[in-house]
Amino acid sequence: MSGKAFSFKLLKTDGMARRGEISTPHGIVNTPAFMPVGTQATVKAMYPEQVRETGADVVLGNTYHLMLRPTAERVDRLGGLHSFMNWPHTILTDSGGFQVMSLAQLRKLDEEGVRFQSHIDGSKHLLSPERSIEIQGLLGSDIQMQLDECIRLPAERAEVQRAMELSLRWAERSRVQFEKMGGVAKGQGLYGIVQGGDVPDLRVRSAEELAKMPFEGYSVGGLAVGEPQDVMLRMLETTTPLMPVDKPRYLMGVGTPDDLLESVKRGIDQFDCVMPTRAGRHGLAYTRFGKVNLKNARHADDPRPLDEEASCQATSGYSRAYLHHLVRANEALAAMLLTWNNLAYYQFLMKGMREAIEAGSFAAFYDQTKADWARGDIAPR
Amino acid sequence: MSGKAFSFKLLKTDGMARRGEISTPHGIVNTPAFMPVGTQATVKAMYPEQVRETGADVVLGNTYHLMLRPTAERVDRLGGLHSFMNWPHTILTDSGGFQVMSLAQLRKLDEEGVRFQSHIDGSKHLLSPERSIEIQGLLGSDIQMQLDECIRLPAERAEVQRAMELSLRWAERSRVQFEKMGGVAKGQGLYGIVQGGDVPDLRVRSAEELAKMPFEGYSVGGLAVGEPQDVMLRMLETTTPLMPVDKPRYLMGVGTPDDLLESVKRGIDQFDCVMPTRAGRHGLAYTRFGKVNLKNARHADDPRPLDEEASCQATSGYSRAYLHHLVRANEALAAMLLTWNNLAYYQFLMKGMREAIEAGSFAAFYDQTKADWARGDIAPR
Repeated sequence: MSGKAFSFKLLKTDGMARRGEISTPHGIVNTPAFMPVGTQATVKAMYPEQVRETGADVVLGNTYHLMLRPTAERVDRLGGLHSFMNWPHTILTDSGGFQVMSLAQLRKLDEEGVRFQSHIDGSKHLLSPERSIEIQGLLGSDIQMQLDECIRLPAERAEVQRAMELSLRWAERSRVQFEKMGGVAKGQGLYGIVQGGDVPDLRVRSAEELAKMPFEGYSVGGLAVGEPQDVMLRMLETTTPLMPVDKPRYLMGVGTPDDLLESVKRGIDQFDCVMPTRAGRHGLAYTRFGKVNLKNARHADDPRPLDEEASCQATSGYSRAYLHHLVRANEALAAMLLTWNNLAYYQFLMKGMREAIEAGSFAAFYDQTKADWARGDIAPR
Repeated sequence: MSGKAFSFKLLKTDGMARRGEISTPHGIVNTPAFMPVGTQATVKAMYPEQVRETGADVVLGNTYHLMLRPTAERVDRLGGLHSFMNWPHTILTDSGGFQVMSLAQLRKLDEEGVRFQSHIDGSKHLLSPERSIEIQGLLGSDIQMQLDECIRLPAERAEVQRAMELSLRWAERSRVQFEKMGGVAKGQGLYGIVQGGDVPDLRVRSAEELAKMPFEGYSVGGLAVGEPQDVMLRMLETTTPLMPVDKPRYLMGVGTPDDLLESVKRGIDQFDCVMPTRAGRHGLAYTRFGKVNLKNARHADDPRPLDEEASCQATSGYSRAYLHHLVRANEALAAMLLTWNNLAYYQFLMKGMREAIEAGSFAAFYDQTKADWARGDIAPR
């Protein structure tokens, strides 16, 4: 622990796009930042040193998974999540709410919290705002999330409103528990989460109410849950102008490279998504020129690397023919190399955006990146 | 390619144990050597640079798997196996015979070779001595194996003899094909394979007949196929004294750390085995103090690394509790770290043997290693 308390510096803006720096007890997070997902205390198929080398300043851990296995109490006894997973840099944890609703069995939600049975062994648990913060505190997370209720879209207005209002009440209870756990004294941060589905005035109410509470940062939740991209972007346009300028803004569970570009343009600072890691396990590579499906037979005799100019080792030492072979043969090295490549590409994109904002050239970067993607993966043989 | 031709220097002996150096077009192999298995052009769950860093001078590729996928012709078009799998050091290939007999469907063996159907797509193939060498030549293998017939033990003497005699005739045909393919000119080596099951006089005949043929090295095949370790060691005692002193001796498909120690003691120079890599994918770790099953609940709260003194990164940055968690959670990183640890331990053991032979202290090393294993994994908490 560096002993530094959570803080955020907004270094530069370019239109709505923001270049900033989050300080946590475990280091600096350069924003806009992409946070690789380390669900079960590991970014799948990656050594932690590699994750760091791609340029990640922070990884995400999932409270739902970790509370069930190995349990927060065990991680605490072993010295906390940073040491457990050999990641000495910043860690952000979610509240567990989203995954309780998608993974747990026999769940029942009421004012107190969510009761559910573990998908691993059927054991019974209660996840309340207080328990979620307790777990995140035991894990030693630098950036913690309030418990919220995230619903799928489309949904009725009344249902969206009910979940949003509940999330506001849970925000207050989460904050109380965070202070009780000594989160502030430890220099950790707690984020409130804006809900409100695809209903603009509910988003507005959620953002305004949360802004009155003393959170270290603010998340936008409940997006990328089934709605088209333009709905998501409209919700961002409604929401980000109401979010405190001097606090980081985190768009949860997003997204494709294009989602990241469009969301940074609309004032978002942090992202997490399983997309680059999951795609890597399914033979899909993200490159400067779009997505490449290495299962495809057209790669079988292609001696070129994925991207001749990329600096990531994963793409430079291996031909597409070899990657195709590994994917077809279901070899672990396929997931290892493609996950590595994909995380490196995501970080390359974030770094490009950060540099462009610093230089005041975000619009040009945006256009060039879109043009590269549109060109597609058509380099001559 | 360094341009060097295959050669073997016997540097030192200590009892029957031998310290030597094999030179190939792709580098030096320090013997006794353990060769990690890279069946499908990848050592499972390892980056090639890591394999090298553990101390491996040579990896093994499986002719049977590679001839079916991606095919030898494709590997040849792409520049050979070394470049394909990003392993610029020495590669040894087997003949494919052993795996045709254990994996292929509808196989039929006669004097010409083995006809079989692919276990991947049912396509029909003939593996003859000539075709096996042709494939190994297309792959660009530095150390090639004659096609032989390897039978399971126990077996009737007549059956053992038939297979051994056939293997001798195939040895001659393999050699002719090797010279026709320009293997000698390319500086590659071809090994003859001693067969004869568990029948001493058949082993003697096989070894004596092969010694008359001009091979660059000699393998002992058909052991570790179901017989007790003491039978295997007796067969080695019968066989190695008849093998040319100035050629490397390779015990195929062996074995446990104890098998390696006992076999080096009996004059073996090279080994390959899937044991360290396969065990790593099943939660088993090899250490100086024996095997550790990380699935076991007793590791769940153990903050110690696998071996506090080992230099392998795989064992130093991670607690047993974390490794246990990864194994239970079925995470890719479990296989990655444990495979790495196991290969590092195997290479550590080989290095220890090489240094002991050089120092004339193999007997003391043998005793100490056995004592360490006997102590077991009981370090205090």
